Parts: sequence; structure tokens; C-alpha cells
Amino acid sequence: MANPLLRAKRLIVGRPLATERLETERLTKTTALAVLSSDAISSVAYATDEVLYVLAPLGAAALSYVFPISAVIVGLLVLVALSYRQTIFAYPGGGGSFTVAYENLGVLPGLTAAAALLTDYILTVSVSISSGVAAITSAYPSLASKAVPLCAAAIIVLMFVNLRGVRESGAAFSVPTYAFIAAMLALIGTGIAQLAIGDTHLSVIPMHPTQVPATAGGISTGFAFTFLMLRAFSGGCVAMTGTEAISNGVGAFKAPASRNAAMTLTWMATILGVFFLGNSFLAQHLHVQPSTTQTVLSQLGHSVFGTGFMYYALQYSTFAVLVLAANTSFADFPRLGSILANQRYLPRQLSARGDRLAFSNGIVALALVAMLLVWIFHGDTTSLIPLYAIGVFVCFTLSQAGMVRRWMRTKAEGWRWKAALNGVGATATGAVAIIQVWTKFTHGAWIVVVIIPAFIVLLRAIKKHYVRFASEIQLDGTTEMIPLRHHVIVPVSGVHKAVANALIYATAISDDVKAVYVEVEPEKTKTLQQEWEAWDTGVDLMVLTSPYRSLIRPLVEYVSALENTGPGELVTVVVPEIVPKHWWEHLLHNKTALYIRTAFLFRPRIVVTSVPFHLGAAHRLRDLLDHDEQIEEERLRAESGPKAPPQTPEAA
Amino acid sequence: MANPLLRAKRLIVGRPLATERLETERLTKTTALAVLSSDAISSVAYATDEVLYVLAPLGAAALSYVFPISAVIVGLLVLVALSYRQTIFAYPGGGGSFTVAYENLGVLPGLTAAAALLTDYILTVSVSISSGVAAITSAYPSLASKAVPLCAAAIIVLMFVNLRGVRESGAAFSVPTYAFIAAMLALIGTGIAQLAIGDTHLSVIPMHPTQVPATAGGISTGFAFTFLMLRAFSGGCVAMTGTEAISNGVGAFKAPASRNAAMTLTWMATILGVFFLGNSFLAQHLHVQPSTTQTVLSQLGHSVFGTGFMYYALQYSTFAVLVLAANTSFADFPRLGSILANQRYLPRQLSARGDRLAFSNGIVALALVAMLLVWIFHGDTTSLIPLYAIGVFVCFTLSQAGMVRRWMRTKAEGWRWKAALNGVGATATGAVAIIQVWTKFTHGAWIVVVIIPAFIVLLRAIKKHYVRFASEIQLDGTTEMIPLRHHVIVPVSGVHKAVANALIYATAISDDVKAVYVEVEPEKTKTLQQEWEAWDTGVDLMVLTSPYRSLIRPLVEYVSALENTGPGELVTVVVPEIVPKHWWEHLLHNKTALYIRTAFLFRPRIVVTSVPFHLGAAHRLRDLLDHDEQIEEERLRAESGPKAPPQTPEAA
Repeated sequence: MANPLLRAKRLIVGRPLATERLETERLTKTTALAVLSSDAISSVAYATDEVLYVLAPLGAAALSYVFPISAVIVGLLVLVALSYRQTIFAYPGGGGSFTVAYENLGVLPGLTAAAALLTDYILTVSVSISSGVAAITSAYPSLASKAVPLCAAAIIVLMFVNLRGVRESGAAFSVPTYAFIAAMLALIGTGIAQLAIGDTHLSVIPMHPTQVPATAGGISTGFAFTFLMLRAFSGGCVAMTGTEAISNGVGAFKAPASRNAAMTLTWMATILGVFFLGNSFLAQHLHVQPSTTQTVLSQLGHSVFGTGFMYYALQYSTFAVLVLAANTSFADFPRLGSILANQRYLPRQLSARGDRLAFSNGIVALALVAMLLVWIFHGDTTSLIPLYAIGVFVCFTLSQAGMVRRWMRTKAEGWRWKAALNGVGATATGAVAIIQVWTKFTHGAWIVVVIIPAFIVLLRAIKKHYVRFASEIQLDGTTEMIPLRHHVIVPVSGVHKAVANALIYATAISDDVKAVYVEVEPEKTKTLQQEWEAWDTGVDLMVLTSPYRSLIRPLVEYVSALENTGPGELVTVVVPEIVPKHWWEHLLHNKTALYIRTAFLFRPRIVVTSVPFHLGAAHRLRDLLDHDEQIEEERLRAESGPKAPPQTPEAA
Repeated sequence: MANPLLRAKRLIVGRPLATERLETERLTKTTALAVLSSDAISSVAYATDEVLYVLAPLGAAALSYVFPISAVIVGLLVLVALSYRQTIFAYPGGGGSFTVAYENLGVLPGLTAAAALLTDYILTVSVSISSGVAAITSAYPSLASKAVPLCAAAIIVLMFVNLRGVRESGAAFSVPTYAFIAAMLALIGTGIAQLAIGDTHLSVIPMHPTQVPATAGGISTGFAFTFLMLRAFSGGCVAMTGTEAISNGVGAFKAPASRNAAMTLTWMATILGVFFLGNSFLAQHLHVQPSTTQTVLSQLGHSVFGTGFMYYALQYSTFAVLVLAANTSFADFPRLGSILANQRYLPRQLSARGDRLAFSNGIVALALVAMLLVWIFHGDTTSLIPLYAIGVFVCFTLSQAGMVRRWMRTKAEGWRWKAALNGVGATATGAVAIIQVWTKFTHGAWIVVVIIPAFIVLLRAIKKHYVRFASEIQLDGTTEMIPLRHHVIVPVSGVHKAVANALIYATAISDDVKAVYVEVEPEKTKTLQQEWEAWDTGVDLMVLTSPYRSLIRPLVEYVSALENTGPGELVTVVVPEIVPKHWWEHLLHNKTALYIRTAFLFRPRIVVTSVPFHLGAAHRLRDLLDHDEQIEEERLRAESGPKAPPQTPEAA
């Protein structure tokens, strides 16, 4: 293992792990809440901001609409949570949107869910990390200009951690989530208490957020107003992202899995609802401003806690829970990628676990695309949100519609009520998806409308290739390879050891061997022919002229002519290949072997073999010989003269 | 020739030319003067600028020193020209600095000359093109910000023209040189006439050159003054670059070659001397300013010709002659590269002529490095000059010192006088080289001091590698390859046509064939084993476990164990390789064949062969069959069933 790249890889990602170490730890409700809810709960870190941003044109009046809109969203959350409880009981092994849609609605809805999920997983990383970094830059405004590199660094760290393989070992992972829950409870509790006794810091804390300009102060009724409200609602719906995580992960719960998962889902929805409403309530009463430099949470933190320890605890725990949320995608994206790859909808490279039992290719792909998005959108959470929320709601809709179809098929006890509940859920989330596309179309939603169908087309094209490939390589009793005669051609450049090795090999695999010399400089041919005669290997030397000085073309023509003499002609080109010891030595040798291989790559019934001659290897071999053997060898060499022919197979 | 890249290449550089078309046209004195002197004569386009720049700190007094300094340089030019006349008669086949130094002074001086020449050729391109573009931007100041892209474009055009192969067909090439000579004669003649009759446009022409600030107006005596004069002299010496071109190219002259070459050299030196002195004289009397936006020639042109036709004729012919000067390097650099490559001091790829009989690799390398320099130095001629002139003077010195040594050895008639002349030339140019390094050390000369020794180290390292390589591959009666037993291993991934092809090939080259399956997912092994049994090829299937899911490692261990069982064991790994039809399909298949080849690359006595299976080829083959054959084939297939075994060699 002298390879320095390999050594570096081992240091960073660790040594390979055996397959048998692949077993899943079962989660208790408390750890499951921490691990599986981080994505959902952490979305309160940016959801209220989205509502406020949209309402900015209303000026001071905006704040009065934040709470009502949030209340509607929480109502929708309750509906979706109830709907997903049913999925949890129906799919005790885990019911992700792809599985439910694919099984119940068919291939195209399944692929739509898959495409939506893949974009979602990518955006979970981009949005969570951007928002997490925003929590930090809100606390330290001087870091604001470094947002994109900070995001990239966070994603790279996550990538390496996941390449090492993260065991979802509850304890450590619970810390950020529960710290964030504690900080949020403290914020909301203290805030409401302060409001109740009228002791707010409003005038004390110097807050200079860069306000979003109020472009249209007079909007209050009519179409424009409705549109604005719908857009604010669309933005706020991002609070619901991550809700499906628990129903995906039912299989990871301790028995009784479904019951425990359902209870955890209830808890999660409750916490999320309380935090979102609490945030919106405080934002309204503490007169928070929509700002591009301070998150709503940071403004609330300043307002309630001042600039003390509690404020920083809030910001750091927000950052931590958002990183944890991004981390869930690093488990989910490659897992879905591997499921799709096993069904041949994605390249098969994504189906295999790497050295450390993680799906390495998927992890790297996710990190790269997420970083690309952060870079394109300058690490700005708000501009990423429209892309994010739509995919989530498409998944909600397909998943619940799948459940409706399932109830209608299975007709289990009480199926009418259950189908009705899932149906209402599907309709509501479907409507929200449409509202999102409509109200945010020019704000980035069009990208999703392009990307999801493009993804579906790609998945289907890949599948089609593999299906065709499988049929093409299937045995059908025919073959193009009937080696009645096996010609072996050895292109030679001179009389030397590399050619000797190739000739020995060639005569070992066939009795019909010819050496071929391509004449580029005619004045050298005579000498070579004389040397060849003197060498006397028993192999004939053909000289091919090359008026255009190409080494390859005359060879290709000669070999093609051989192969075309009749059916059953098989040609092997045995190329003597010099293998230098150091990388830079490669620059000093023509890559003739590579060119020859490439030239024949698309020719059936022609096989190219390179017989390597290793520079520096002879010395090493000699060092390994005993001293006695060395002396003996010297003696033999002295006897046979400096330019004796090598042992041809006839001699051996 | 369906390859679109190849088609594009043909369109740009033309079809290949046969070697027999390589013959040199002999040049008359008039064409030789045009072709071989462009480099030298064109240097008047920037030499006066260099003197003026350095003298800028003297303010208005600067101009009075320009002419004396130029006169000293012209004196030096006469000395060097006389010295080179002797080289021309001594080396009627062409006596470049490398040849003269290598033959007479030995390897190290020869390599020093080679290194200095290679840097010079590169800098001739960078400097000439930068200066040519400066002639254009002086006429059209709005183009000044586009200087670097303009230079790059000019170099790329030159590169493609030279890749097509430029026959040095005098007529066309004479135009720029004689046009420039005519324009310069007109400029100097008119200028002096105007001065004589006192009719100068000085006050009429609006000239707003950006002046180089006069930093130290008070310098007039002592060390600082001497240093400044020497530096100005160093800068002006760039006028002498290109003087050696004629002695390099003696072989291209019509008989009597040496006589004609010597006469041409005299003409060239005269023209160059007159132009340089004329320029400096006019610059002094027309009060030209050192400027970063207008060349001296452009200022003189404006002053003498105003803004009319003659001014533009001067600028365009300056540009043209400088492009022609750069073009000479595109012939000389690859030619020297090829000489060095043939002597194994440079990679052998540089020794071969390309499709169009030009040394393509050298041409591309030169263009790339020249563009890199232009880009690094922002297309600024002045900052490139120190790098340029030093190398030229090192070559002058070594070449003339070599001649001294030659006279002392041959003792030809009058050798004492000749040796004395060459000796004076060598001493003078050597002194100038030292002055240049000293006075311009911090202005870029240090780069040359680093680059030339680095180049020499590189040339020697390359030579050393080739010498060791030649001794290693020399036949000495020993070989590591004694194929007493030839094992063939076929790694298989399933039962399909690609594996069938590989098995057919394997059994054709040895009787000892084993199929090997690396078990990554144990649950699939059973099925494969059953399919294999059912297939009944007569080849045994080995299953290798892979606890770490690597496909390669178990295979490497298995093959190594085989090869280590004793001396004379030869192993061939026959890899079934899927060759997709479209490039994007490569992304959908693991590159297992490539990984296997790489894994065994450094193992002697192990040969890796891939047997390609071409996706899409079966269909094409079928289309080619006659209708009758197709029907027959269908019938046979129907009889043998859909999953019949392929024809193994036993059956064939």
C-alpha cells in the first residue's frame, strides 16, 4: 500500500469495513424524535422569514398577517400528519413516497415521486446549510461576505463524515435537536412572559437589519392582495418539509414499530406547530422586520435575550440542528439512489456500498450538486426555497394519493374513512403544490417545473439502455467469435527486451505469429532487418510502409485485411508496452500501446493485448536473488554474450 | 472517417502529406533577406522604446543620450555580424549556436546554448506578437484593453498556419519585410528632410501619449548615471536579436550558399543598423516621449506623416513584419526540439513529423508557452524584453567561443586573425550578457538566471532516463518470461454473451482456463452457480468471497497466488469488456476492465486482455446479412432454443 492517494483516503475515511458489520440499530422514541425530526423541526429556522419577506410590500401592516397565515399552515400540518399516521400503520417496513406511489399508482407516478424526492434531498442540504450559516452570520455580521465558502466547508465536512459512515447512534445525534428544542422553548416562553408583563427590550437592543423595501404600501384588497397572501402562504409551507421522514423510517423503530412511529410523529407535529406559531406570534408582537442580514430567529433572540449567553445558545443550536437536518439527506439520497439503481433507473455505480459500507458515489454526487446550488444562489436561503417546497408537496400528494388507491384495493377495516382522510390530504397538498408553482413561478418555481420532468426523462432513458443492454448480451446461441484460425500480430519498434517478452507471449498463445514493423523513417529499416535476421527467433518480420508517417494506420489496414480473409479469423495484436516506474517517465514514451488499443476498440474479432515490460523491475528482481545465484547468473551471461537471443518457447 | 473531431482537424490543418513531399526549396538572396531577416530587422520596432523607457528618469535630457547609445549598439552589431560571417563560411550546412557550441565546446555549453535558444524562440513569439499588437493599438487606442486576447488570437492563427505546414515560399513571405523596409525608408527619409528644411509637424499633430513619469530628474553623474546608461544600453541591445538567423539557415541558400549567405548577412546588418540609428536620430530631434500607449515608431509616424495613409501603412507593415518574425520561431523551435529529441535530450514525441510534415507537437508546445507568457506579462513588450535579450547574448557568446575553439583546432589559413575576431565578439557579447543580468536583475533577468539552468537540468535528466531505458531493454540473454504453464483466468459477472466471447477467446489461447466470480452480494451466488451448471461450457467456475465488497482485491490475490506457485507460471486475465456505442453510455457501466488492467499494470508475468463485446454491433451485423441468411438464422435459433450455449472451441 505505497500509494499515497490511498493512504490519504484511509486517513480521512478510515479502513474498509466488512459487509457483515451492516446491521441496523433500532431507535427508541426519544432518539427517533431527535434523529428523524431534525429536518422538520429545523424548518422553523427559516419558515417565518419566508412569510415576512413576501409580506414586505405591505409595510408595517405585514406583521398582522403573519400569525393567521401561520395558523392555516399549522392546520395543514395537522391534516398531513394524520394522513401520514395511516401510512405508518400500512407500511410498517417504511413507506417512502417513492415506494407508496410506485406500488399503488404505477411507474410514472413512482418516477415522479423519485424525481421530486431526489431534488428535495439535494435542496434539503442546500437550504439547511444556507440557513444554518445564516444563523451564524446573523450573530457575527462580519462573516456575512464569507457565507458561500462557509456553506461549502460545512457540506464538505458532512460529506467526509458520511463517507466514513455514520452509525445513527442516537445519543450524540440527540444533542443538537434537544438543545434546539430547549432554546426554542426558552425563547417562546420568555418572550410571551415579557410581552405579558410588558417588559420588552424593543427599544434597548440596537438592531439595524437591512429592511426589504416596501414597494407597494397601498395593497389591501382585491386580486393583488389575495395573490400576496397566497404567496406568503406558499413561502410559509416550507415549515412542513421533513414531515415524511418518520413514515420513511418506520423500520428503524423498536417494536411495536408502527405504534412508536405514530406517537413520535404526533410529538414532532406538535413541537413543530407550537414553534412555528410561537415564532410567528412573537414576530408580530416584537415588531420583527423582514431583513436580508438577520434571520427572524436572530431578531427574536436579540429582542428576548439581548446579547447574552442565551442568544448565542439559540444561534448555535439552530446551526447544529440545521446541519443535522442536512445530514439526514446524506443517508436518504444515496439510499434512494441505490434503490433506483437496483431497478436500473440510475447508473449501477450508485447501487454499490463503498469501503465503509456507505453508498460513496451517491454521497459525493449529493455534496457536489448541493454545493453547486449554494454557489449559484449565493448561499441565499430565500431564493432556494421555491425550488425546495414544491418538490416536497408533490411527494406529499403522490404519497397520499397512493394511499387512497391502496385503501380502495385492500378494502381493510374502516377503509372508507381512511381513504377519505388521505384523499383530503392529497387534495390539500396538491392544491398547495399548484399554488406554489403559480405564485412563485417567476421566483424560481419554473426551475422545478423543468427539472422534475427532465429527471423523469433521464431515469427512463437509463432504464431503457439497461433493458436493451440486457437483451443484447443475453445468450441466444449466436456469436461473432468462431476462432477457426488465430493470427497473432506483434508490432515491433526494434530488437529489444520488451519485444522479446511480447514474442514469447505471442508464441505461447498461437502458432501463427507475425512481427510487424511500420516503416516511418525508411533509412532505419535495413538495420532493423539485419538485426532481426541475426536475432533468429523463428518469427517472420513484415515491413509495412507508412507514407504518411502514421504508426497506426498501416497496422489497422494490415490487421483488417487479415480478419477479412474469411469467417472464423480471429486476430490478436500483442503490443510490447513499456511501463515506466515513475509517473513523469510516462511523458517520455509514446503511448503507442494505448493508441493501438483505441484504434481497434470498435472492431469485433480483434483483440489487443499489451505485454508489459517494467522499467526498473529487472534491477529489483536482481536485488532479490541470493548472492550465489547472482554469481551464477553473471557466469552464464558472460558465456552467452551480451546480445544473445532470449529464450523463445521452442527453446524453453 | 466518421469521427467528427478528425473531420474538424482535416478542415483546419488539411489532409496528411506523404513523406516524399519533404524537400527544401533553395532561396535566392532577395527572398532569403525577407525570410531570414524579418526577426532581426523587425526588432527596430521596439528597441528604441527600450532605451527611452530606461532614460525616462532623466526627463527632457534623456533624448540626447538615445543616439549615442544606439551608435554603440550598432558598433556591436557590426562586430557580431563580422564574427558570424566566419561561422557562415565554416558551417556551410548551417551553424546554429547549439551545433557550434556542442561540437566545439562540449556537452554542457551545448546544452546551455540549447536552453538559451529554446527560451529565445519562445520569447521571439511573445515579444514580436506583443510588439506587433502594440503597433495596432497605437493606431487604434480603443483596442488597447484587448491587447492580450489580440496577441493570443495572433499566436493561435500562427499555430494553425504552421500545423498545416508553411512552405517557406519566398514570394508571399517577402511582402511584409519589403513593405516594412519601404515604410521605414520613407519615414527616415521624410523625417530627415523635414528636419533639414525645418518643416516639422511637431506642434500640429495632437499627440497625448501617457508619459512614463520622470522619477529622478537630478541624475547626471556618478554611479547612478553610469548604471542608468548601462541599463539603457542593455535595453537597446534587443535590436540585435535575430542576427544569428542567417548563419543558422546557410543550408537553405542557393549555391554558392556561403557566399550568398554572407552577402545577405551584410545587407541585413546594414539595414538594421541604418534603421536603428535613423529611428534614434529622429526620436531625439522630434522630441518623442517614452510612453506606455504609443510606440516610438507610431509617434514618429504621426510626427512625420500626420494621420494619413502613410502612417497606417507604417503601422500595418510593422505588425506584418513582426508576425513574420514570430513565424520564424515556429520553424526554428520545433526543428531544434526535434534535433534535441533525436539526441534524447527531449521527449521523443517531439522528434516526429506530424500529418502535414511539420513537427506538430513542438508547434503546439511553443504556441502554448508563448501565450502563457503573454498572459502573465499582460502583453507588455517591455517586461518581456529582459528575459529575451539575455538568452540571445548567451547564444552569441557560446557560438563565437565555439568558433575560437574551432580555429585553434583546425588551424585553417589565417586562423589567428579569425580566432581573434571571434574572440573579441565572444568577449563583447559575453560582457553585454553580464551587464544585462546585472542591470536588469530585478526587472525580470533573474527569471532567465533560474530558467536556463533549470532547463539544462531537465535536458540532462531526460537524457539520463533514455540511456538507462536503452540499457534496460537491451537483450542480454535473460528474461522473466518463461511460459511453462499458461493459466487463463476469466472474471465473470453472470451468464451472458460478453462472458461467452471471453470464454471462447480464453479457450483458444490456452487449455488451462478458469472462470472466476467475485462474490459481493452472497445472495446472488447460488443463482449464478446454477445458471453456470446449466450453461455447461466445460470451464470451471471459482467463487471468490469479498468481505470488503471489492471486485478487484480478491482477483488480485487469487492471480498472485497462481503466479507464485513456481517459476514459469504465466497468467493471462481475459476480461469481458462491454463497449457501448455512445459516449454517454460509458457512464452507465462500471469500468471494471479498466480497473483490472490498472491493478495488474505493475505485475510482471501477468497479462491482461480485454475481449470487447460491442453493444449495438449485433444489430448492425444482422442488417448486413442477406434476407435468406436471416431466415435460415431464425430457423436455427428457433431450433436451438433461446438460451443455448455459445459455440465453444470444442464445438467449433
